Amino acid sequence: MHKASSSSFLGPDGLDLSNSFFTPISGTAPATSPRRNTKITVVGVGNVGMAIAQTIITQDLADELTLVDANSDKLQGEVLDLQHSAAFLPRVKINASLDYAATANSDLCIVTAGARQNPGETRLNLLQRNVALFKHIVPPLAKYSPDSIILVVSNPVDVLTYVAWKLSGFPANRVLGSGTNLDSSRFRFLIADHLDVNAQDVQAYIVGEHGDSSVALWSSISVGGVPVLSFLDRQQIPYEKKTLENIHKEVVQGAYEVIRLKGYTSWAIGYSVASLARSLLRNQRRIHPVSVLAKGFYGIQGGDVFLSLPAQLGRRGVLGVTNVHLTDEEVEKLRNSAKTILDVQSQLGLK
Amino acid sequence: MHKASSSSFLGPDGLDLSNSFFTPISGTAPATSPRRNTKITVVGVGNVGMAIAQTIITQDLADELTLVDANSDKLQGEVLDLQHSAAFLPRVKINASLDYAATANSDLCIVTAGARQNPGETRLNLLQRNVALFKHIVPPLAKYSPDSIILVVSNPVDVLTYVAWKLSGFPANRVLGSGTNLDSSRFRFLIADHLDVNAQDVQAYIVGEHGDSSVALWSSISVGGVPVLSFLDRQQIPYEKKTLENIHKEVVQGAYEVIRLKGYTSWAIGYSVASLARSLLRNQRRIHPVSVLAKGFYGIQGGDVFLSLPAQLGRRGVLGVTNVHLTDEEVEKLRNSAKTILDVQSQLGLK
Amino acid sequence: MHKASSSSFLGPDGLDLSNSFFTPISGTAPATSPRRNTKITVVGVGNVGMAIAQTIITQDLADELTLVDANSDKLQGEVLDLQHSAAFLPRVKINASLDYAATANSDLCIVTAGARQNPGETRLNLLQRNVALFKHIVPPLAKYSPDSIILVVSNPVDVLTYVAWKLSGFPANRVLGSGTNLDSSRFRFLIADHLDVNAQDVQAYIVGEHGDSSVALWSSISVGGVPVLSFLDRQQIPYEKKTLENIHKEVVQGAYEVIRLKGYTSWAIGYSVASLARSLLRNQRRIHPVSVLAKGFYGIQGGDVFLSLPAQLGRRGVLGVTNVHLTDEEVEKLRNSAKTILDVQSQLGLK
Amino acid sequence: MHKASSSSFLGPDGLDLSNSFFTPISGTAPATSPRRNTKITVVGVGNVGMAIAQTIITQDLADELTLVDANSDKLQGEVLDLQHSAAFLPRVKINASLDYAATANSDLCIVTAGARQNPGETRLNLLQRNVALFKHIVPPLAKYSPDSIILVVSNPVDVLTYVAWKLSGFPANRVLGSGTNLDSSRFRFLIADHLDVNAQDVQAYIVGEHGDSSVALWSSISVGGVPVLSFLDRQQIPYEKKTLENIHKEVVQGAYEVIRLKGYTSWAIGYSVASLARSLLRNQRRIHPVSVLAKGFYGIQGGDVFLSLPAQLGRRGVLGVTNVHLTDEEVEKLRNSAKTILDVQSQLGLK
Repeated sequence: MHKASSSSFLGPDGLDLSNSFFTPISGTAPATSPRRNTKITVVGVGNVGMAIAQTIITQDLADELTLVDANSDKLQGEVLDLQHSAAFLPRVKINASLDYAATANSDLCIVTAGARQNPGETRLNLLQRNVALFKHIVPPLAKYSPDSIILVVSNPVDVLTYVAWKLSGFPANRVLGSGTNLDSSRFRFLIADHLDVNAQDVQAYIVGEHGDSSVALWSSISVGGVPVLSFLDRQQIPYEKKTLENIHKEVVQGAYEVIRLKGYTSWAIGYSVASLARSLLRNQRRIHPVSVLAKGFYGIQGGDVFLSLPAQLGRRGVLGVTNVHLTDEEVEKLRNSAKTILDVQSQLGLK
Repeated sequence: MHKASSSSFLGPDGLDLSNSFFTPISGTAPATSPRRNTKITVVGVGNVGMAIAQTIITQDLADELTLVDANSDKLQGEVLDLQHSAAFLPRVKINASLDYAATANSDLCIVTAGARQNPGETRLNLLQRNVALFKHIVPPLAKYSPDSIILVVSNPVDVLTYVAWKLSGFPANRVLGSGTNLDSSRFRFLIADHLDVNAQDVQAYIVGEHGDSSVALWSSISVGGVPVLSFLDRQQIPYEKKTLENIHKEVVQGAYEVIRLKGYTSWAIGYSVASLARSLLRNQRRIHPVSVLAKGFYGIQGGDVFLSLPAQLGRRGVLGVTNVHLTDEEVEKLRNSAKTILDVQSQLGLK
Repeated sequence: MHKASSSSFLGPDGLDLSNSFFTPISGTAPATSPRRNTKITVVGVGNVGMAIAQTIITQDLADELTLVDANSDKLQGEVLDLQHSAAFLPRVKINASLDYAATANSDLCIVTAGARQNPGETRLNLLQRNVALFKHIVPPLAKYSPDSIILVVSNPVDVLTYVAWKLSGFPANRVLGSGTNLDSSRFRFLIADHLDVNAQDVQAYIVGEHGDSSVALWSSISVGGVPVLSFLDRQQIPYEKKTLENIHKEVVQGAYEVIRLKGYTSWAIGYSVASLARSLLRNQRRIHPVSVLAKGFYGIQGGDVFLSLPAQLGRRGVLGVTNVHLTDEEVEKLRNSAKTILDVQSQLGLK
Repeated sequence: MHKASSSSFLGPDGLDLSNSFFTPISGTAPATSPRRNTKITVVGVGNVGMAIAQTIITQDLADELTLVDANSDKLQGEVLDLQHSAAFLPRVKINASLDYAATANSDLCIVTAGARQNPGETRLNLLQRNVALFKHIVPPLAKYSPDSIILVVSNPVDVLTYVAWKLSGFPANRVLGSGTNLDSSRFRFLIADHLDVNAQDVQAYIVGEHGDSSVALWSSISVGGVPVLSFLDRQQIPYEKKTLENIHKEVVQGAYEVIRLKGYTSWAIGYSVASLARSLLRNQRRIHPVSVLAKGFYGIQGGDVFLSLPAQLGRRGVLGVTNVHLTDEEVEKLRNSAKTILDVQSQLGLK
């Protein structure tokens, strides 16, 4: 942003001061095969996109960060605000552009852009407008960064991840959605808060469709090596199915509650997506419940559908899905979600 | 927030599950003199307050963070959003309250609250409304955390830091304002950007009144051990005073520009204040240009006035001010700022 | 170390330059109740003690670190080597002393000192020499830091943790041993390595006596929410008890193997103890298998004995022990270890 | 190390459990142009090599770390010790090998190996043995990682960096020595310690030959934007040349003192080299005094000689040298060092 427009810092007549400040040593040669920076692109600089961008910068996950948005003023304001932080941070190159050429050679493209629902608009109509929007976003991302991983955050995340996959032409392991990664974090927080333990000692997953019909895997909950359900059984601590459902309900309501109170969500989704970026770019092979091509798992048939499953993430994207055991009831729920989503997708006119 | 309302997690009838999940060992005794957590309070959960709070959490600077605001919904929404991030972060206790009792025993109180200018309102009238606001904020902070450090971020920062000092009754070393810490960071960014070096290798300070009449200390600029002005002299690189002034102008305009483009500033002030929090709470003894009681420095007389000077910060607050050399012109500017501020203060009716 | 001896930096005649470099602001008052630094003492600067000290510094876990050892040269050399690192690190005060007065007001005292086995010496004799050594270490630590937590790393860790507890007169929640925390880490590493997952997604614990008779809790192993044993059952993947035992054997052999190859262990125990320090001092409430007063758990009777159990650690030390389910065989092993240790303890002549 | 030998974890008959634990999603394709990990090789696993390796791991600077040494047992012991730390750290692949093929595609190769002086051996003879050693180290490093940067830590560092440059055939910007980076850190520590400031607020450089004839750049010392020498002048604080020289002497003696006391240096050089690795691999463009091809600077003529100068480091290695001003006396010292080194080099028989 700045470098481009810097005509006359201390020297007049465009004298390039950095050239006189430093002298190259003799015997210097350009790199024959220069190693690339780790580069992340974030599309959309709303509250979600910026919380993601800022968390990525604070956690030092990228050498280069490019922001893209259609709103030029907002975009320039956000990048300037981040650039002013330079003296407090490790050096990272922060760019902004209306033009996707600036995203070239990204390792990871995070899409947070999305249309807002108009008053009285049907969900299908809103979705169709989002598909139209993605047609302007995904193909240029795929063109300029053909080896990148695309991570969709925009909602409805499962359908839009499918849309991004179709529009990109990428193999399925390089397109995923943030899915229930954050729902699972909320789930872990609630369990940790009630048991008064550190959330990092809690394993607990929510899978399936992001939103009201997500599936809490009760039997997966383990705290410090203690499977919680069998612990309760053994201790003969009574609990009712309804109580469990209330916890899940609190998770699902979490996002709505934050939106009702402050108008939008930002911080938690920022940390959540930053954790995915770390696992992907630093090849961490960690397991996250994210939206992946779920065809063939748990008897899901009938077409290509993206749903959240516990997936191992690394430099090549989605490395695999864990064979977590589901009850018949949980499998049924997953299949129903798949059917609903496939119905919606059939109306989008994507081939 | 949650703990308080958790009546019946898995066990009905208010059974406290964490008690059955853990058993105390024998011979356990309560701490006779329990060491306190590091606790930070942030007053005001607007864009600035929240950027500060989130950066403090990401950088793991506090064991406990309390947010206070008059807007209950916004406050609850922000704290919920942060709490949902628990699984991605080291364990930190995040609270929110409308009641200052929740801020008790804070180590650091950061005040970001401030009234907005009404159309046609004079600056003095706005300031008087802010003084009225501070009368509801500062005394309870001082009452509940009598040993804390108060850090004022609200604008006009120099006058309001004076106001906070008077209202708190604290010794002057425990009341400071964010002042020109961020301006100096912008200054360092611009210099680093033009020389294409890491901003952390640049020493450069802006002092005085935060805003249009701040003073750039040109002779303090040193890059990698090279004093830049004498370097230019020695290299016989011509430069004009006007060029230097343009850089300073770009710094001053920085905040206005971000506000014009995105409507407010947030990220850079968040990082800036987090850096101050680290120096104060971790006793770093680092030097920051912040607003301190400047009476007696550079011949500033006529009353108690806060202005930014390069100050060493540590656990006891402001440890001292560096004896940086100013030109006569720079001293003159400082004294004029002091006079203007004293004039304004005399109209506030504080004793 | 340095400050004490700095007589005449730039100014002759003992002029204190830092006084002329900084000027206090007016209205400065000393803190009435100054908040203490986070202070850690490490006793013993051998390979283990120094790996712990250096990891604690790199991970920024303390504001002040004091090293104690009987070998003055080695001690001074190590502290100088660490101090020379200052420019690369956050500011931390590093001291060394032969005198325990320097450890005053520590939050955590880590004991790594221990006698080495002489050729032909019986284990009991060696232990008695270590008890004699601890009589010179623990009482002064307890005297100068009466509110601290004592963490024993010296071997045999379970008996010596008991010894430290007796000698300190501290409540049992403020004395613990590193126990099987590292064994469990090795266990998690082996499982993660074979499954090619991130070790942070593996929950797996080894408890009981540190060393050959430790107990691997097979049913506690959970990877990404999948309990591994029931997964293998469900997938009808055959495995034999012997194979499982081989993994445990590899864990137990791990330390011996490292000692055989390089002569001692250092890095892993350094990281292991730093992780305990973080949980204790930052009140993380994380669950670690560490040596705690185990009387009353799993029917352990007959006297005060320390064994590793999954314990929740926080600012007050050992907060509780998780009610992890053990098989009858595992319980039997624990009780046998307890008996053996109690036998040994009865010969030490501590009352 | 482990993966290779893992024949039968839980499944007998070499069943690969990770394959049954994870299932790939459909539509998975291998990366067409897989992005490489950040890989660092450390040659030599003595105290210096291991302090570097461990600091690099703790600071999360590499995705892959390969250790090479001629001593197989020590090598295996060190790598096992590091691998056991996996559960406490971000996932990093740690390998060890006697064979340089394992170092292939490194981004940075750090050479710490060196022969020890035999009793009565001349320095020239020792150097010749080190040259012989480097002939077995550098060519295979250059062959397997032709695009890497080579960083020499072995002493005498300036001559051996020249030797590595000649043996590698690399352009000069991709071969450097740790030089006076650590001396400068010690210099900054001493100044910060005496002024009681944070060492990160001190700019101060030592350049030239690493060791007794290094050159302290007094006029480069700047603390918080205050050039110290002119400050002392202005404050009319008397100081003598001898006092300044004593500080420099204390820096030079620092390493000898640590060696005398503990037998070797490790921690500070570990942090020092890790800071160089960060600047190089994360393209930080920070300025470090390191040993670079100095021909042509300050009138140094007569051949290719490596000496420490303040150099800007980034992904392409040495980006340039700052035009720091030296006094005539300082220039004279530099030229004398260059002459001495060239003399020695002429006796090594390298062409």
